[in-house]
Amino acid sequence: MAGNTYGEIFKVTTFGESHGPAIGAVLDGVPPNLALDVADIQKELDRRRPGQSKITTQRQEPDTVEILSGVFEGKTTGTALALLIRNKDQRSRDYSEIKDVFRPGHADMTFLKKYGIRDYRGGGRSSGRETACRVAAGAVAKQLLIQHSVKVIAYVHSVADIVAEQCDFAVIEENIVRAPDMAAAEKMIALIDEARRNLDSLGGVVEAVIQGCPPGLGDPVFDKLDAKLAHGLMSIGTIKGIEFGAGFAATRMRGSENNDEFVNEGGEIHTKTNYAGGILGGISNGEEIVLRVAVKPPSSIAQSQQTVTTSGEQTQIEVKGRHDPCICPRVVPVVEAMIALTLADCLLLQKTIS
Amino acid sequence: MAGNTYGEIFKVTTFGESHGPAIGAVLDGVPPNLALDVADIQKELDRRRPGQSKITTQRQEPDTVEILSGVFEGKTTGTALALLIRNKDQRSRDYSEIKDVFRPGHADMTFLKKYGIRDYRGGGRSSGRETACRVAAGAVAKQLLIQHSVKVIAYVHSVADIVAEQCDFAVIEENIVRAPDMAAAEKMIALIDEARRNLDSLGGVVEAVIQGCPPGLGDPVFDKLDAKLAHGLMSIGTIKGIEFGAGFAATRMRGSENNDEFVNEGGEIHTKTNYAGGILGGISNGEEIVLRVAVKPPSSIAQSQQTVTTSGEQTQIEVKGRHDPCICPRVVPVVEAMIALTLADCLLLQKTIS
Amino acid sequence: MAGNTYGEIFKVTTFGESHGPAIGAVLDGVPPNLALDVADIQKELDRRRPGQSKITTQRQEPDTVEILSGVFEGKTTGTALALLIRNKDQRSRDYSEIKDVFRPGHADMTFLKKYGIRDYRGGGRSSGRETACRVAAGAVAKQLLIQHSVKVIAYVHSVADIVAEQCDFAVIEENIVRAPDMAAAEKMIALIDEARRNLDSLGGVVEAVIQGCPPGLGDPVFDKLDAKLAHGLMSIGTIKGIEFGAGFAATRMRGSENNDEFVNEGGEIHTKTNYAGGILGGISNGEEIVLRVAVKPPSSIAQSQQTVTTSGEQTQIEVKGRHDPCICPRVVPVVEAMIALTLADCLLLQKTIS
Amino acid sequence: MAGNTYGEIFKVTTFGESHGPAIGAVLDGVPPNLALDVADIQKELDRRRPGQSKITTQRQEPDTVEILSGVFEGKTTGTALALLIRNKDQRSRDYSEIKDVFRPGHADMTFLKKYGIRDYRGGGRSSGRETACRVAAGAVAKQLLIQHSVKVIAYVHSVADIVAEQCDFAVIEENIVRAPDMAAAEKMIALIDEARRNLDSLGGVVEAVIQGCPPGLGDPVFDKLDAKLAHGLMSIGTIKGIEFGAGFAATRMRGSENNDEFVNEGGEIHTKTNYAGGILGGISNGEEIVLRVAVKPPSSIAQSQQTVTTSGEQTQIEVKGRHDPCICPRVVPVVEAMIALTLADCLLLQKTIS
Repeated sequence: MAGNTYGEIFKVTTFGESHGPAIGAVLDGVPPNLALDVADIQKELDRRRPGQSKITTQRQEPDTVEILSGVFEGKTTGTALALLIRNKDQRSRDYSEIKDVFRPGHADMTFLKKYGIRDYRGGGRSSGRETACRVAAGAVAKQLLIQHSVKVIAYVHSVADIVAEQCDFAVIEENIVRAPDMAAAEKMIALIDEARRNLDSLGGVVEAVIQGCPPGLGDPVFDKLDAKLAHGLMSIGTIKGIEFGAGFAATRMRGSENNDEFVNEGGEIHTKTNYAGGILGGISNGEEIVLRVAVKPPSSIAQSQQTVTTSGEQTQIEVKGRHDPCICPRVVPVVEAMIALTLADCLLLQKTIS
Repeated sequence: MAGNTYGEIFKVTTFGESHGPAIGAVLDGVPPNLALDVADIQKELDRRRPGQSKITTQRQEPDTVEILSGVFEGKTTGTALALLIRNKDQRSRDYSEIKDVFRPGHADMTFLKKYGIRDYRGGGRSSGRETACRVAAGAVAKQLLIQHSVKVIAYVHSVADIVAEQCDFAVIEENIVRAPDMAAAEKMIALIDEARRNLDSLGGVVEAVIQGCPPGLGDPVFDKLDAKLAHGLMSIGTIKGIEFGAGFAATRMRGSENNDEFVNEGGEIHTKTNYAGGILGGISNGEEIVLRVAVKPPSSIAQSQQTVTTSGEQTQIEVKGRHDPCICPRVVPVVEAMIALTLADCLLLQKTIS
Repeated sequence: MAGNTYGEIFKVTTFGESHGPAIGAVLDGVPPNLALDVADIQKELDRRRPGQSKITTQRQEPDTVEILSGVFEGKTTGTALALLIRNKDQRSRDYSEIKDVFRPGHADMTFLKKYGIRDYRGGGRSSGRETACRVAAGAVAKQLLIQHSVKVIAYVHSVADIVAEQCDFAVIEENIVRAPDMAAAEKMIALIDEARRNLDSLGGVVEAVIQGCPPGLGDPVFDKLDAKLAHGLMSIGTIKGIEFGAGFAATRMRGSENNDEFVNEGGEIHTKTNYAGGILGGISNGEEIVLRVAVKPPSSIAQSQQTVTTSGEQTQIEVKGRHDPCICPRVVPVVEAMIALTLADCLLLQKTIS
Repeated sequence: MAGNTYGEIFKVTTFGESHGPAIGAVLDGVPPNLALDVADIQKELDRRRPGQSKITTQRQEPDTVEILSGVFEGKTTGTALALLIRNKDQRSRDYSEIKDVFRPGHADMTFLKKYGIRDYRGGGRSSGRETACRVAAGAVAKQLLIQHSVKVIAYVHSVADIVAEQCDFAVIEENIVRAPDMAAAEKMIALIDEARRNLDSLGGVVEAVIQGCPPGLGDPVFDKLDAKLAHGLMSIGTIKGIEFGAGFAATRMRGSENNDEFVNEGGEIHTKTNYAGGILGGISNGEEIVLRVAVKPPSSIAQSQQTVTTSGEQTQIEVKGRHDPCICPRVVPVVEAMIALTLADCLLLQKTIS
């Protein structure tokens, strides 16, 4: 209710502040007898963790996960599955700089307005660190997806004005920016490096493709599949927009162009085009689900910016420290996790119908 | 759980098929002692109803609403508030054309795949007619918003390539396309008329501005204000994308440009710019909330399109009848309704904190 | 959230005041392709309706139900299923007697304390009339139970000190008090008649047996099957207690006596005794589920009672009108309905595990 | 959804198996700025912990709790509040005895039927150990109750046939059985001791009184205050029944006797009697809330009992180890915790109305 839980049947509740003792997640509704090893989770966390390349923050957090419950002899038991990640890089540092000053683009001000109290050590609950729990929980969801032959692939579609022209899934993990186009990746990396040197930051677009999603997922009214995916993905702090299939481009198309005609391909009904992005009337149609999210440039920059103190005085701030000049590469596993969690929930909900 | 309910505290459950006896909504969690007259609801329904202008469908549905419970002597009582709208234009027509054929762009196929049964009389539960219940419920939510001095204004920002250059709220209801720019409105109307004559349809962008939203609404993790609004708005059948503030354009901005600097304006903390669209870290910051949704061109067009029958045979279909060539003008009140419902929920949730 | 919805997957939302235009229910999560006729629902409503015998209230409410949505050609469609019952016996009567006076044992006072407003025409939302919607919704749930070969049988176990000594299910509907013992029934009827003549009322115990419940229903922690049944049954206004199996008597038994030993009966595991009442660790074990609820004597009696006015003045009240001297016979179908709704939910939830 | 979460606004999710690495709880919706020290929680855990007296199990579990998040500088922050308790007494023991044999009265069989997999090390998720998390979470809820001047007092009303004749709250924690009557306590302790020596176990009744509960809590239909309390309390594994106020005794009373007449006492409306137990129409009326729960005799006894193996063979079992001969004294803090959690939720929900 206070928004730390996601999902209806396959549910995850997360907790933890960036500079408290630990962060973690409790999954409820995970079906029993699902193979699950701690390495399945650690592998995904390693894709998100800081310090993984020269274009990410150099902060060191090993993000080692421990399974506390819900798994017995390598299989899920159907009971609550708890995951714990101890915070390591929470050294007693000097927070005086940000304790009494609102960082532009951050939740410092809105948090204080909401709760009347704020854990000023870093982002607290609003820190991007919170997404590690999503990735850990998403790794469990992915095990369910594997069982249903559903695959989620996310990648960096663009950084600022540089757009991936090719879409070769095989190279995504071959470059540190996670673009599906090696040539574009090189340009993106160079641009990010330049932004870092300029004490500035860059945004971009992350695209995701869901393969093998069975038709019938999603509900026809308020819980349309795209509505649920939008909820999950827009809840990632750095995301400012989302579109499915043709998305905003569909607003400039005629109906005769945008409608995907149905064809019978060897006994299976498919659409000739996929402007709908795999979802019709809020329900998956069996085609690839395609979506894109708008990732804003990180707010933490070391340039001097105008702001106010908690007591309202005008001041300047330079957000020092080790920040990501472009968060897109690290958002990729988070996007995959939120999609996996959403689909896991839809897959289980669909079982109540048949 | 099957997706016919929206909201957590201020909740609405809707029901009804386009060609069944009635549609309706039950609101739960409406605070007591809120002034409410049936005319408050009817007024909003009239803005959404078919046949309201030459550029909408000419179907006739008076959409007269009856309050069945939850209101006593002009005030809400705090108990479940039920609204009923009888279907009038459900004349026994010949459905043979669409009974066994999947209309491109519609949910016919996905519905059948999901449930194994389909009410083939029109769109059934997937019909846009369902949004009348959202508008009726949204009218109740608006009464709560008025009490909190929050105002929601939606309008047509663009139709195909024609974009409103001005944003004069005063003229929105002065033109049948609901654009905030009379000159652009004229061009939009002409283009829609042309599409109609060509048996085609047009999409567009609807923009919404929320004024007077207090800071502190929305929760920091999964139920961010933008995530909840995205859920609600993406659940409108015709919408394919959403963005807040600078949205997708933010992906091409530097952090130093996109960050909204804080300023003290006469004792109140504001931001100099509003690229964030009024939401920081998922929590309202007191600025105007600004969002845009992508509305696809309606799928029902009388042009011949390729499709398949329910038994998989290749065929052609022309979706005849009285359809909207551009749904944007009628989506405007639905967008307002979903925003009002979402904000009403957030306002009540916020009371549990203080 | 305001408590007008019950269930998680198989959900029912009810609405309506006793003297408003109508009452009704919206079911969500009803699986598609379930055979359902309006007569299935009417039959159950007729078992609950007033005026059915000389020992019930003589008020006349035909309680005719209309299906508004969710059913197509005799089958459920999987969409929201709405049921409507128009109030007929809501004639403009003189409410001055109860408008400003709190009836002892009723919710008049607590309702006003809670909401600051009260629909003083009869019980409003607190009226026992609200249970008609539960019975209607329960009739839909029963169709799902029939599909799973689960049977719910409730009956009057005792009225005041008169206890049914026999338990012959065949005679329950053969006597107007709904006892499983014809001899006891006669005595109960006589006692109720006497109470009516004395302007007084009587309580009793309603017992229910669930046959054919598969093992595995219910969840091990907060949503134990008995906890969910207790929630549902205790939400019937007139019920003050509930027990399962040996219940309170188990508090005076030794563990060696109360433990039900397991036996293998022809390949099936059963228990020799059933003190647990069919539930172990919150999960059904395949034995008959047995429970009893305590039904208080109705609060509406025509005897003079001391009370206060809404402005706090001491006064006397005689609650005139046509009231039930013992509500037990009419509670029987309500108990069955709440059990059916609870089991339907558990049956669907269980599908998400396998 | 899988039942590891309790509450709607003030929510708790628990996790952990009795012999896994840890158990714990995550609270969501805890209001910010509530004073909270780890000692507040530890104090309650110490009341529940094993080995506290000669009449409880001699198992040693220090149950030391760690706060992982949601508290900053001695105050709650409004974010998810996580509590962790490491299991200490989970020494590698020989489970062969219970691995393949169903213990009578336990959830071994139903668990396996439900999930098809079972953590056979002790009770796993069905262990009474799970209630430690409830007690820890309840301690947080109690801080909210203190703020609202609400007090919850539970005690042992009876053990087998020995009933506390006096009700002196001051002596409850002065005797190891937690009875409000020192003379009865002595007899209870002797009887429990005797049962232990006989390798048997005893049940009893735990009563609870809620003082200072404001009128208006609870919702009129499905979420009546008594229904919610019944759900919470019946979800404690060992409880087989619950009653409010006169409870089952009310079934033998006349309405003229059972109705609590209203009186004006110095400007406040009270009832002369309290047969209703402080709840009218599901809403608190400002009187003391009184309830009783039936606690069954523990199922783990060292006497030989008949049972079957997981493969269906008839066998004998003696459940050895260190078990509680009567769980009532340790159930007292669990009952208080579930009541505190329920009331905390109702208090916050009530804020959404005013």
